Amino acid sequence: MSLTLYQTSVPAFVRGLKILSTLLDKARAHAEANNIDPASLVNARLAPDMFTLAGQVQGASDAAKTGTARLASLPPPSFPDTETTFDELQARIAKTLDFIATVSEAQINQSEGGTITIKVGGKERTFASEPYLLGFILPNFYFHITTAYDILRSQGVKLGKMDYLGTFESLQGE
Amino acid sequence: MSLTLYQTSVPAFVRGLKILSTLLDKARAHAEANNIDPASLVNARLAPDMFTLAGQVQGASDAAKTGTARLASLPPPSFPDTETTFDELQARIAKTLDFIATVSEAQINQSEGGTITIKVGGKERTFASEPYLLGFILPNFYFHITTAYDILRSQGVKLGKMDYLGTFESLQGE
Repeated sequence: MSLTLYQTSVPAFVRGLKILSTLLDKARAHAEANNIDPASLVNARLAPDMFTLAGQVQGASDAAKTGTARLASLPPPSFPDTETTFDELQARIAKTLDFIATVSEAQINQSEGGTITIKVGGKERTFASEPYLLGFILPNFYFHITTAYDILRSQGVKLGKMDYLGTFESLQGE
Repeated sequence: MSLTLYQTSVPAFVRGLKILSTLLDKARAHAEANNIDPASLVNARLAPDMFTLAGQVQGASDAAKTGTARLASLPPPSFPDTETTFDELQARIAKTLDFIATVSEAQINQSEGGTITIKVGGKERTFASEPYLLGFILPNFYFHITTAYDILRSQGVKLGKMDYLGTFESLQGE
């Protein structure tokens, strides 16, 4: 059984976004339990010129929605990066999941063996769909989820590696 | 063109490990240029109970070699976690790449549609090969590479997102 482009993309986005939502829930609970201003977590970052937690969530959303749309030859929906609270970040994740759910397996798999053209630095570049997904979209998606986790850990939120990896039960169910 | 298990695993490990090697080269150059003790970078971490930079490199190596070995139904080689310098971490990456290079496409692809049994907390658990790779091994591999990057960024090493993602040229060449 080889893998379709759909199997290699959408389940990973859905699983990762749900895990990110759980990380944010735990961060909010940590802020409430410790009288921490939630904004101090939402705006936390690891270096002055890196994105904040909010930016990492927006980045994970962008990687998932743009990757899904491009693989399906659809225009990616535009989500303005205006979220400043945990509620708004959860809504961003929810609308990303909603968009992904509108895309069918067939729409994604029609681009198997095809190419994807994107603008990089004002210049059009064309990639085969498969290395674009495996070498760019997925590493970028996991970058943002991991960095969200790393920001929260650096801020003292009690999380463990399994919070990032998700349960084995949900893995078997896929 | 659907994806084989090999296409979905080994090229990602090789690409990621080479990128990690480049990140470490830049970190060492940063330490030399700024009279920083290299050990302070190798031992840096984002939270007291997270792994150091050395631990993240060891974790990326483990995810790649264990994932490759399990998919190929081979015993994973045991690499002791003894590295304390940039040279030793580079050697760890090199021997991980050397092991991966000994595994053939056919050895990996024979486990398509099969199962992988691992011990988790002393208990045997069995997963289908594909969700094990996509939902566990790859997210775990990118976790360690991203966290290595995040540690170096938090220590002031001059890196940008493209240092993590790698060049588009290398993507097209895969």
